[in-house]
Amino acid sequence: MSSLAEIARICGVSVGAASKALSGKAGVSEATRQRILSVAAQHHYRPNRLVHAIQSGRSMTVGLTCNDFRNDFSGRIVEGMLEALYGADYDAIVISWDLCVHEGEKVLRTFAERRVDGLLMFPPADQPSQAYLQELKTFRRPIVVVDQTFAGVEDYDFVGSRDFEGGGLATEHLIGLGHRDIANLYYGKTSTGRARLEGFREAMQRHGLPVRGNWLAEIGRYDGNLDEPYELARRLLSQKDRPTALLAFNDPVAVQVLAAAHDLGVRVPEELSVVGFADLKMASHIRPRLTTVAQNPDELGRRAAARLLSRIGEDGNGSAADGPGVVERVPVSLVVRDSTRPPARGA
Amino acid sequence: MSSLAEIARICGVSVGAASKALSGKAGVSEATRQRILSVAAQHHYRPNRLVHAIQSGRSMTVGLTCNDFRNDFSGRIVEGMLEALYGADYDAIVISWDLCVHEGEKVLRTFAERRVDGLLMFPPADQPSQAYLQELKTFRRPIVVVDQTFAGVEDYDFVGSRDFEGGGLATEHLIGLGHRDIANLYYGKTSTGRARLEGFREAMQRHGLPVRGNWLAEIGRYDGNLDEPYELARRLLSQKDRPTALLAFNDPVAVQVLAAAHDLGVRVPEELSVVGFADLKMASHIRPRLTTVAQNPDELGRRAAARLLSRIGEDGNGSAADGPGVVERVPVSLVVRDSTRPPARGA
Repeated sequence: MSSLAEIARICGVSVGAASKALSGKAGVSEATRQRILSVAAQHHYRPNRLVHAIQSGRSMTVGLTCNDFRNDFSGRIVEGMLEALYGADYDAIVISWDLCVHEGEKVLRTFAERRVDGLLMFPPADQPSQAYLQELKTFRRPIVVVDQTFAGVEDYDFVGSRDFEGGGLATEHLIGLGHRDIANLYYGKTSTGRARLEGFREAMQRHGLPVRGNWLAEIGRYDGNLDEPYELARRLLSQKDRPTALLAFNDPVAVQVLAAAHDLGVRVPEELSVVGFADLKMASHIRPRLTTVAQNPDELGRRAAARLLSRIGEDGNGSAADGPGVVERVPVSLVVRDSTRPPARGA
Repeated sequence: MSSLAEIARICGVSVGAASKALSGKAGVSEATRQRILSVAAQHHYRPNRLVHAIQSGRSMTVGLTCNDFRNDFSGRIVEGMLEALYGADYDAIVISWDLCVHEGEKVLRTFAERRVDGLLMFPPADQPSQAYLQELKTFRRPIVVVDQTFAGVEDYDFVGSRDFEGGGLATEHLIGLGHRDIANLYYGKTSTGRARLEGFREAMQRHGLPVRGNWLAEIGRYDGNLDEPYELARRLLSQKDRPTALLAFNDPVAVQVLAAAHDLGVRVPEELSVVGFADLKMASHIRPRLTTVAQNPDELGRRAAARLLSRIGEDGNGSAADGPGVVERVPVSLVVRDSTRPPARGA
């Protein structure tokens, strides 16, 4: 790989002349142009996109922030994003979740200094600091919030899943099988967790079924590695009046519920039906195969990137000031496998 | 966020004067400097790193390529990398695995045009094309190959795991429990898969135990979503002379082996011991809890990034030409859980 200056030096011409020849502009003779092009090919000349970025005011990069890379759900979102971005000749500068939590404002500043044309933002799991929200306001390029939302970013576009509907679908499925005693192991710290719980509540109410306090268990801190969901499930299932079915916040939580049931000798699905959320690959690989609400993370990523690119195309100078952002929700669907069945008679 | 030009315009000074004031250089009066600094703070001025990159010849970015984002193993490698890079004020431009396979050369060209200071390369699973290797040779900045290696990249530094030792550890564990009839569900298309298989072979040989052809099954195409490992395991375990233990290429493959055993009514660990590789979070969440060879992907990522940064520090103009690269291997360890036990008597 050679730079413009090197090509010019080798050819014995000015940088200006080399630039004209390589960009097809007038001002050099055809013979000189051919000579420069040939030297450039031979020396693997690559145009400097940093120069182009400064000249055009577009860096052709977006910042991608605050992703937990450790699960295949957000991994697929990222892949969808990269696919859409790359198709538009954009690249992503990626900064990881932990750094966003601990150094949120610094991360945003980095993106500003890199002159990214926009931000795709997986919010941190906890409510961000005031300093973070403040720094966000000074970032005058488009921002699209992805998957999770939180107070303070209502002005930005948002792309997520139909979590509320998903919670309803899972509940309707269980009620349709004859269950009335349904527990919910939810994650109230996130917008997705709250929406799924609300979908459950609304469906139960629609059928006149009670939501019992001792069958609701809230996960305090979830990061996929912790065993808290296992402990909560174990406690919930150890009660004398055990539910016949349980909705889990997501598939990894459902796997922990299966483990707790196994360790207590509670058979799934004979004595307990379990529903997950996401449809990760593990859902069909474990036994019993998991009934779950399938999301479409690739599509979510593609749509979020497409929306950001369209905002960048509109102005390049931010949309946040123009009023509330557009909310887009990708559909979900129920996948019935082997972890749910009608409750045992007399249960 | 405001640019230098905007700050200069607001202050009614030249861009040069504004630059001097903001970078602490001489050439402006103290009163003017204070006025410019105050306006800059008020208007959220952010220095333009693109300009700095061109001036210094260092973009302070590295390219990160060819990662399958869809599992928490490589996700943790990426997090380790980002942590080390960010600590050195570096950012990563990330391009996904699929794009690297389909447009490998174009991806490398993109990185060259972005003037990344180095490359962290997860190789594609299949042997890359000649064009890809050729393009790689024209990239004159340091490259570190991560996790998997392949023919044609011997000149570059490599950071991976002790896969050979891991295969040996798992085999020794089974032999120590009394197993002699050990199967291996391996993935020969990758360097890690071949090394783990060799570690197995060597340990068997050391103990004078035969490696039987009908107990070796090779995965043809593995991407974590496919059911091929399940089918292979099912066929292997359906044989009349069934092995009493099985080594799986990695944890997700081991989960599929558990599923096949479950569906055939073969009890784990009573009738079959199973060992995984990686120690993903799923390994301790499923039942039976999986015995596995633990890798340290975060450390792998940190070391790879640290090695790249050190190469960049040495010259910034590539190390590939200086002879064979340095090979660094992160230790692995055996984690014994519930999926292995001595073979049943008479087995």
